Amino acid sequence: MFRGLSAFPLTPTDEQGVDYTSYAALVARLAAAGVDSIGALGSTGGYAYLTREQRARAAKIAVEAADGVPVMVGIGALRTSQVLALAEDAQKAGADAVLLAPMTYQPLTEDEVFGLYEEVTRELSVPLCVYDNPRTTQVHFTDDLHGRIARLPNVGSIKTPAVPDEPARAEARIDALRALIPATVTIGVSGDWAAVRGLNAGSDAWYSVLGGMFPQTALMLTRAAQAGHAGRATELSDQLEPLWVLFRRHGALRVMSAVASHLGLTKEPNLPRPLRGPDTSARQDVAAALDVLGLST
Amino acid sequence: MFRGLSAFPLTPTDEQGVDYTSYAALVARLAAAGVDSIGALGSTGGYAYLTREQRARAAKIAVEAADGVPVMVGIGALRTSQVLALAEDAQKAGADAVLLAPMTYQPLTEDEVFGLYEEVTRELSVPLCVYDNPRTTQVHFTDDLHGRIARLPNVGSIKTPAVPDEPARAEARIDALRALIPATVTIGVSGDWAAVRGLNAGSDAWYSVLGGMFPQTALMLTRAAQAGHAGRATELSDQLEPLWVLFRRHGALRVMSAVASHLGLTKEPNLPRPLRGPDTSARQDVAAALDVLGLST
Repeated sequence: MFRGLSAFPLTPTDEQGVDYTSYAALVARLAAAGVDSIGALGSTGGYAYLTREQRARAAKIAVEAADGVPVMVGIGALRTSQVLALAEDAQKAGADAVLLAPMTYQPLTEDEVFGLYEEVTRELSVPLCVYDNPRTTQVHFTDDLHGRIARLPNVGSIKTPAVPDEPARAEARIDALRALIPATVTIGVSGDWAAVRGLNAGSDAWYSVLGGMFPQTALMLTRAAQAGHAGRATELSDQLEPLWVLFRRHGALRVMSAVASHLGLTKEPNLPRPLRGPDTSARQDVAAALDVLGLST
Repeated sequence: MFRGLSAFPLTPTDEQGVDYTSYAALVARLAAAGVDSIGALGSTGGYAYLTREQRARAAKIAVEAADGVPVMVGIGALRTSQVLALAEDAQKAGADAVLLAPMTYQPLTEDEVFGLYEEVTRELSVPLCVYDNPRTTQVHFTDDLHGRIARLPNVGSIKTPAVPDEPARAEARIDALRALIPATVTIGVSGDWAAVRGLNAGSDAWYSVLGGMFPQTALMLTRAAQAGHAGRATELSDQLEPLWVLFRRHGALRVMSAVASHLGLTKEPNLPRPLRGPDTSARQDVAAALDVLGLST
């Protein structure tokens, strides 16, 4: 489940609600391309902005549209009781795994974060991926906390933030984390622009925003790294620099929002307020980058 | 409305729900003490962790228990559509004002934050207090953004984070902000340990966590500052240092949670998971500080 390319699609949403039809098509497109798993309702999938009912329905649709490809469903929420309810909904929808970020309003102590994972993993009958995303949660996992949580029952993977730029340091980071966690727990990287460094450094999975929109492109890179062709994988990632620049500047979600409407895969807007897609000038940059990369159609 | 001491009570909540009886008593206690206004469902009031229904009921109870003392109600949420619904509920409950922090999951751009306030203020029939709290929202208001938002219709006040330590710098900060906003918009300070510096520097209000539990103590300090007795106000604040130390170490919410159960004003626990009150050793520190300050009964 937690190996290879995990593709994270948008959940197209506006003030009228979720566009489930476009969503099903986005997921089906990923399954048809042969991704290893689908990450439904991740940060790119806007889980934090949807109601329990919308999330339950989106989870069901994702599982159906994935047509046998394993689906992981995001269950994060501000309250433990909400997370438990969402975990139940995801499992009822047929999710193969769940993804949990420790969302915060009041900054959480390390014991509070651990307590959340302890209470939730106890109730699960599918494996959980620990979602370490300080940019959205403001939780800074220490190595000690990762080690404690990874030893809880049902923990299957850790989704880490971008690894360091320098290959030796990226490898040291993956190795250090690996030493702290059971052998059954995989490590998957995020931060698409740095993903190739994580894959080349031995991470097991790429939890990928790019893969949620351009599965073939992300698969080519993933398969090269998995086959041990580090140089080729790096080359493929370097070619995507025009997109990585925009990811770093506007956030991957906003770029993917602009891409989805540019390619006609969703209506516009496709993000819930107060989020707005990139402004006109940034949209032109996105369109230009797609043209350069031959990703416009 | 937005002047003097605004007291922010806890909303005692556990996994079974909100303890509305204790909540009504907490609010009535503040009104009886003569605070200038009550800040219901602020950060200390746990607004981010409650459902729409719980918030509507708590708002109604706060207005009733306040017995004529003006009540401001927190309407923050991750989605603009939720904020609009909560604003309606608060106004129906009889709130005299609303308080809005730009809650975030995906980091918001300045235009997205402005857009949120623009859409919400347009719909209001009571004044709004802009809640600038980077610790919980991760939004760092620039002066330019404060100026733009303060000129929107229905904006009545800005709740700012702690002012700088040094009195001259605190004054410069208040003056700089004042120069950017209409004369009709007041400035109120948060960060209780620094509140006296804000009041002495000419801020109009103290949005106070301490005042939500110890209204007499906070009123004495506020009245001294309002009467121009800066030295006396500073002395009163300095005396509270045993509490300020704990506020800075554990967060004001956790300290007030421990105080409320120590004083028998709420049951224990009184915070919703994943939040937990302070650990045993921190609770002993809280009890010792209350003893030293003569606030134990």
